[in-house]
Amino acid sequence: MAGNTFGDMFKITTFGESHGEAVGVIVDGVTPGVEIDEQYIQIQMDRRKPGQSSVTSPRKEYDIIRILSGIYEGKTTGTPLFIILQNTDMRPEAYTDIQHAFRPGHADFTYLKKYGIRDHRGSGRASGRETAGRVAAGAVARKLLENRGISIIAYSQEIGGIRCNTFDESIIEKNDVRACDPQAAEAMIEKIQYLSSIGDSCGGIVECRIRGLSPGIGEPVFDKLDAELAKAMLSIGAVKGIEFGAGFAAADMLGSEHNDQMDATGFLSNHSGGIVGGISTGEEIIFRVAVKPTSSISLPQQTVRTNGEEQTIVTKGRHDPCICPRIIPVVEAMACLVIEDQYKRQAALHDKSSF
Amino acid sequence: MAGNTFGDMFKITTFGESHGEAVGVIVDGVTPGVEIDEQYIQIQMDRRKPGQSSVTSPRKEYDIIRILSGIYEGKTTGTPLFIILQNTDMRPEAYTDIQHAFRPGHADFTYLKKYGIRDHRGSGRASGRETAGRVAAGAVARKLLENRGISIIAYSQEIGGIRCNTFDESIIEKNDVRACDPQAAEAMIEKIQYLSSIGDSCGGIVECRIRGLSPGIGEPVFDKLDAELAKAMLSIGAVKGIEFGAGFAAADMLGSEHNDQMDATGFLSNHSGGIVGGISTGEEIIFRVAVKPTSSISLPQQTVRTNGEEQTIVTKGRHDPCICPRIIPVVEAMACLVIEDQYKRQAALHDKSSF
Amino acid sequence: MAGNTFGDMFKITTFGESHGEAVGVIVDGVTPGVEIDEQYIQIQMDRRKPGQSSVTSPRKEYDIIRILSGIYEGKTTGTPLFIILQNTDMRPEAYTDIQHAFRPGHADFTYLKKYGIRDHRGSGRASGRETAGRVAAGAVARKLLENRGISIIAYSQEIGGIRCNTFDESIIEKNDVRACDPQAAEAMIEKIQYLSSIGDSCGGIVECRIRGLSPGIGEPVFDKLDAELAKAMLSIGAVKGIEFGAGFAAADMLGSEHNDQMDATGFLSNHSGGIVGGISTGEEIIFRVAVKPTSSISLPQQTVRTNGEEQTIVTKGRHDPCICPRIIPVVEAMACLVIEDQYKRQAALHDKSSF
Amino acid sequence: MAGNTFGDMFKITTFGESHGEAVGVIVDGVTPGVEIDEQYIQIQMDRRKPGQSSVTSPRKEYDIIRILSGIYEGKTTGTPLFIILQNTDMRPEAYTDIQHAFRPGHADFTYLKKYGIRDHRGSGRASGRETAGRVAAGAVARKLLENRGISIIAYSQEIGGIRCNTFDESIIEKNDVRACDPQAAEAMIEKIQYLSSIGDSCGGIVECRIRGLSPGIGEPVFDKLDAELAKAMLSIGAVKGIEFGAGFAAADMLGSEHNDQMDATGFLSNHSGGIVGGISTGEEIIFRVAVKPTSSISLPQQTVRTNGEEQTIVTKGRHDPCICPRIIPVVEAMACLVIEDQYKRQAALHDKSSF
Repeated sequence: MAGNTFGDMFKITTFGESHGEAVGVIVDGVTPGVEIDEQYIQIQMDRRKPGQSSVTSPRKEYDIIRILSGIYEGKTTGTPLFIILQNTDMRPEAYTDIQHAFRPGHADFTYLKKYGIRDHRGSGRASGRETAGRVAAGAVARKLLENRGISIIAYSQEIGGIRCNTFDESIIEKNDVRACDPQAAEAMIEKIQYLSSIGDSCGGIVECRIRGLSPGIGEPVFDKLDAELAKAMLSIGAVKGIEFGAGFAAADMLGSEHNDQMDATGFLSNHSGGIVGGISTGEEIIFRVAVKPTSSISLPQQTVRTNGEEQTIVTKGRHDPCICPRIIPVVEAMACLVIEDQYKRQAALHDKSSF
Repeated sequence: MAGNTFGDMFKITTFGESHGEAVGVIVDGVTPGVEIDEQYIQIQMDRRKPGQSSVTSPRKEYDIIRILSGIYEGKTTGTPLFIILQNTDMRPEAYTDIQHAFRPGHADFTYLKKYGIRDHRGSGRASGRETAGRVAAGAVARKLLENRGISIIAYSQEIGGIRCNTFDESIIEKNDVRACDPQAAEAMIEKIQYLSSIGDSCGGIVECRIRGLSPGIGEPVFDKLDAELAKAMLSIGAVKGIEFGAGFAAADMLGSEHNDQMDATGFLSNHSGGIVGGISTGEEIIFRVAVKPTSSISLPQQTVRTNGEEQTIVTKGRHDPCICPRIIPVVEAMACLVIEDQYKRQAALHDKSSF
Repeated sequence: MAGNTFGDMFKITTFGESHGEAVGVIVDGVTPGVEIDEQYIQIQMDRRKPGQSSVTSPRKEYDIIRILSGIYEGKTTGTPLFIILQNTDMRPEAYTDIQHAFRPGHADFTYLKKYGIRDHRGSGRASGRETAGRVAAGAVARKLLENRGISIIAYSQEIGGIRCNTFDESIIEKNDVRACDPQAAEAMIEKIQYLSSIGDSCGGIVECRIRGLSPGIGEPVFDKLDAELAKAMLSIGAVKGIEFGAGFAAADMLGSEHNDQMDATGFLSNHSGGIVGGISTGEEIIFRVAVKPTSSISLPQQTVRTNGEEQTIVTKGRHDPCICPRIIPVVEAMACLVIEDQYKRQAALHDKSSF
Repeated sequence: MAGNTFGDMFKITTFGESHGEAVGVIVDGVTPGVEIDEQYIQIQMDRRKPGQSSVTSPRKEYDIIRILSGIYEGKTTGTPLFIILQNTDMRPEAYTDIQHAFRPGHADFTYLKKYGIRDHRGSGRASGRETAGRVAAGAVARKLLENRGISIIAYSQEIGGIRCNTFDESIIEKNDVRACDPQAAEAMIEKIQYLSSIGDSCGGIVECRIRGLSPGIGEPVFDKLDAELAKAMLSIGAVKGIEFGAGFAAADMLGSEHNDQMDATGFLSNHSGGIVGGISTGEEIIFRVAVKPTSSISLPQQTVRTNGEEQTIVTKGRHDPCICPRIIPVVEAMACLVIEDQYKRQAALHDKSSF
């Protein structure tokens, strides 16, 4: 199948280009009878939208969602939820002069190779704009997970080489970079503002924690919980890697160090990151994703045109010097989709009801 | 769906437990009319099988494959290929004394929580034994990819904290740890033998390179080439992380450093690891996976029994002190499955034929 | 998965309720670079829309489609096509008095049992209105099939007990019931108008022919071409049966009569309806679907309320006394979706390209 | 995907050719902790196997199943069940003289067109032999459905033009044609024996009833319960049509006749066949399938060779003059697979558990 659908029992299909008329999502498999408040979804959209702070793209997208189906009198009906966002404040003219050139780090070259045709304006389907539909759908999953007692948070653990040394959850949503260390947050913001001033960009590391998950969630073999989460995270454009628990550090550990031993009170450590054999242990699930520096920079770069001619390019348009702050709600949304889907799959496996 | 099927147009479904009668795989979507030599598949099986060297489990599995369907007069017929391997040299008795205890690092606890019942012998379905079917199916995909001019190799880049400093491809299959640096290989082997002697284990990092891939391969959005590869790799029991190209190092790079610029001869660097926007650039695809230390160690560890009582456990059975050498053919096999599948999806997308 | 997605490599997902704000469809897997004229799609929408003739519902839905993504400069880009239709001329008040009663023949009872909640207005998701998205998506598939030299037509073979005795293709779109026999057409129209005048309704049989299909199209075993077509047709609300070629008459035939023999010029008969072993023979594909009489009638009927109380009900609203004329474009659309999907699957199976 | 997998949450994948070494099935998504008695499955295999009576093929297949995985100490573990049947009493030599000729009514021609290569022996994958795996998997689903209080029976309603006039369930398994009318059964047997003696064959109609189903089972829109059953039945080689409830007769009924009215005791009729809007009403589900006459007859027929030359052919081998008696367990098995799958999907949709 083509790649615009995600999930099995809780399933989303997205559409829309960065500079088209609208973007949106169909959410199928939503538990019926659940109260969904549009405001509840909007809160997540606002965390993702551009122009929310000094360190994000000034592009103004009010990102007001509209639900056109699947809700009746404030409750889900079990039929597909359709959520649409109009695109506004588009400036395709900003892209006309690069219509025939490949922007370094962007999917211009690969999309043209894949399709033989491309909508050059603002990366079309490869734009971060596509993730708006994911965040809206993720909010629906988040609501279902809240009813299960599950919470999911992500935050910047490192930006531009600056690492968080403390974990203060209370400040994450109170600083523009969504870091978990107030001092690091300040340094990160300065770093981003400086890079922005010289037309460059930086990457970072986002960490995600899933709490309240029951033990026993996740499919074995190919659809392991970590495998599904890895696919979900790598499906986010700027993500270049993922690690669970000790992750790459596990490569340097001994079995006697890495194994999570148990006593009557439970696990004595969580090097596994809460997943063993692809199935949840009941401990907190912890993973980190590597976020590459924003590809759009205003420094001159070397590239070629579709006709093969070399040229120097300067990417205009309004971009985030670091995508971490805005990728966080997307990471959370994708995690919500995976977890809700795995719960529904677990329910199907065990069902013996005669209703 | 339950998690024992992988792939879309080139699809495999595996079955079998570590200490059951047999393991195997059904491969569906195989291009018809392709000559498949059983020996060709057996070569890959032999690279994965235990007992092949001083650093692997002494368990003797001759792993002789038998193809029971899908081949006629030496050629694939386009119908499902069924490949089976009998299990031999099973010693379930080695597990009887841990029937009611959870081995640290193993899926004993999580499987019991998920299913409410488990086959405790040799990890059942969570055993590395399950990957035999993947390697057999991967060999079929590898054959199809060879016809497309694509090659896939993986090797140990780091084991037990010892890193390769050179990349000598010619020696990879000539040393027991499948490392790409002859000096590092020797040190790795010594390290593994030492850890084995004290009953401990270690992990490592396996790197994989895919060559000859056309630009334009990979689905956008959710089924990105890197997303599918990430899922494939994290579906391997011991893998705890994956990174593409610069990977986690990208987090510390500037956009001006990370972006792969182009001139008329092509890309000037490959920090992306050969994938941008989820689609291949035509450059070599490079990714690394973090392999945790083998969970089965003979040092005493603290755990609990299914009834909650605490106990000290010593894992018996015959295990690999480091799984990297034998995980390499599995990494390659999963990569082959993903790439062949993505090629077939690309063919479907573009098809306009009237035959 | 939930049931709102259809197809594998050419895949559609629909949303929307009869009396919601809009209905629509996401079409994924569309061949890139194909010129799609909105008018081309609109022609099919106009064949399905209500109010088009004396024998259809007077409900006015102008059914003007809008494509919000997947097209750039008049050509498909290979990314999801999103097509939306606003609902207009809704009269939910017509349903308020039946909010708590189950209309005989309608899905009111079953939807409430399935979901525990329902949007009672105009059948919600179970309304024929839902098929608008299918017809729009089917038109896209039809365009791709035209490029393959394939044409698909359906027509009323029987309505209200009146059968067509001739097959004059030229008149099908020229009479209000889309019958293939001009005399039968007149009698059918009279019959429908009479039933309408007394508040009753009737059913019929729609026949479909697919021409220009290559031999060898269709998957074996579970996804046989006839199996996929059967699923597609039975997914249309009013369809209660399907038969291919000789169909139910084959039950009374001898093998020596039913077998389609061959000579050097090809098949000597087509009792199979163009499909053997689930794969196309290259002959015309012929199948018939049984269409039940419209459930909404204005004669008093016995039913119960959601609280179990008995009541007599008279279904108001504006309905088709016979659904056959308007179901025809839906039958064609679903057939187009199946055939295009099977072609793409065939292309994937055989692909050996290195691009 | 290729067509050898069926189902969503309860999923089977089959392999094997008629004259290969074995046929079998992987069943994934089996509820864990369920006692499965191999004998229980064998009973269904014995109902399907050849040589069981005077009216079936004398080919001797003892069809002894072996379960190689997914069961531990007599209970399902939730991991894939693998069931294999060795092929025995193969006589490929019976086919050598038709290696290059297309047997009328068989898939020889279409398979060669699809794949460009074929295993000519006994129809390969298109053989009824393939259904052995379905029946084994269906027995597992039947066990799960029994625990839900659901029973499924099928029987011959018509064979060779002879119809059953009574419905005596108690005699179905007591006569060789599995008819529901003892007098009709005798006439059917005589008819079959006569046709067998002159080398011809006949078809029939098989009816299936599903009892104990809860109301509310089935997905809306594309995966309607009747749509899934239609696909399942048309995936059986010899089936050429299906109808639910009144079926094709509904085409001649008025809305006032066909609508199933209700009173406080429930539905007053069941013209819908127990499914409205694709969802179960709680009434008995009734459908009929049209079975074509066996293609293999020993009367001379006209055909062509792979090189285009005309020839007269006489199909040797050992075949059933009427396939109805042996198709009945296959119809039941496919129905079991669909119903169990739909129950699991319903459970997933509604799940809100925190386990």
